Amino acid sequence: MVEPSSPAPVVILNAPQLAENIGAVARVMANFGLSELRLVNPRDGWPQERAWASASGADWPLNDAVVFQSVEAAMADLRLVYATTARPRELQLPILTPRRAAADLWAATGEGLRTGLLFGGERAGLETADVALCQAVVTIPIDPRFRSLNLAQAVAINAYEWRTTQLDAPPPAFREGPPPADSAALLGLYEHLEQELDAAGFFHPPEKFPSMSQNLRSALGRARFSDQEVRTFRGVVTALSRGRGKVLEKLAKKEAGKEKTK
Amino acid sequence: MVEPSSPAPVVILNAPQLAENIGAVARVMANFGLSELRLVNPRDGWPQERAWASASGADWPLNDAVVFQSVEAAMADLRLVYATTARPRELQLPILTPRRAAADLWAATGEGLRTGLLFGGERAGLETADVALCQAVVTIPIDPRFRSLNLAQAVAINAYEWRTTQLDAPPPAFREGPPPADSAALLGLYEHLEQELDAAGFFHPPEKFPSMSQNLRSALGRARFSDQEVRTFRGVVTALSRGRGKVLEKLAKKEAGKEKTK
Repeated sequence: MVEPSSPAPVVILNAPQLAENIGAVARVMANFGLSELRLVNPRDGWPQERAWASASGADWPLNDAVVFQSVEAAMADLRLVYATTARPRELQLPILTPRRAAADLWAATGEGLRTGLLFGGERAGLETADVALCQAVVTIPIDPRFRSLNLAQAVAINAYEWRTTQLDAPPPAFREGPPPADSAALLGLYEHLEQELDAAGFFHPPEKFPSMSQNLRSALGRARFSDQEVRTFRGVVTALSRGRGKVLEKLAKKEAGKEKTK
Repeated sequence: MVEPSSPAPVVILNAPQLAENIGAVARVMANFGLSELRLVNPRDGWPQERAWASASGADWPLNDAVVFQSVEAAMADLRLVYATTARPRELQLPILTPRRAAADLWAATGEGLRTGLLFGGERAGLETADVALCQAVVTIPIDPRFRSLNLAQAVAINAYEWRTTQLDAPPPAFREGPPPADSAALLGLYEHLEQELDAAGFFHPPEKFPSMSQNLRSALGRARFSDQEVRTFRGVVTALSRGRGKVLEKLAKKEAGKEKTK
């Protein structure tokens, strides 16, 4: 028996369009023991009565749903977030089946980490920039001849796999060492790095910034840095960019030495 | 790739009420490669335009749907039919998970048997008499605290398991794109980074260098960078450390600006 307090993954819907679909998502969340719902910029605002009408009594995920202005904000406190998308991406992120993803999420939960599943809106799906914030992509094995999967169905498949994993799984292995940093800490590192790279003229031509940024973020995200490691790499960025004074001093000394020997 | 002719289980809906749900069932059938739909006494008759409207283009299961007067008639030509129901039954039938059921159906299909999955209507579910016609019961592992599962969701979970089984359990995490770089390339990146950090006075006190270096290397190593990513991050190191000229220029300009305003 699963306890009500068991920390299931947070479901994050980015830019959902139809309130009926949000309600249907709440219903399948309740079916499979998930309860925490976050909405990023729901098209028609929030709350929407029609969501409750289509939830068939699964009111609690809706009652407690929190609205965010950005995907970054919605995942700031989570330490492992997977993006659910059917589309192949240029990003170098692991592509997982829902089953494998559920096993990962379950293992992370056992280590006390808060986790999440990110879903795109009905029409547009997820932006690459949002996927780049996640640690892996979950792809449902859809028939390539008919890819139009309903949003609530996508949530259902993943929620079902979560619950099946939870019911089947032995107690998860314990983590040795510190947990991964939360998304806010990672974002801080990414922005710090990009700011210094920008100052150094790295993003050239400027219109390439989005894809270059996404590639850097997804590559670094795979490492799942701890808080301490995030601090270390911020120190690395600072040292490389601000430590330049010391390098210039040394170069100057060398030059001076050369002058003297002349 | 699944062939169009692959003999997937027939989906039988007994006394479905809402045409929208029949359309949603057709949609998830198409998502997961099922195509043959049979309707037993649909409440509002058949065909119903609203079914097509809610199928999002998955018209073919609807176009070819056949209506029957009884469950017996609908399953007459099938050799293995499982009843999908959440309720415990007094019948002495095996109770299977959707995963186990899909494996059985797949095995039977391999033996040339026609198979089916029987679903009850939205409100009433299945009668015990109908379940008794089947060879086993499939029970989706629903949270007992919220059992109200949408009909199309129930079909989706089973269809998803069918397709996953059919794809023969693909490797859990398949890699798309380039393999990880070799150790020599990684070492080149590490040494480059450390050299620049050393020049910037990062390794302080010097006797801490070995442990600091190990921490940086193991944290980055977890990301399993590709060759291209190794090159990118070498570019990052170069930009941060050697691109300093641009930053100093900017600072100098700022200073100059301040001077002027004095």
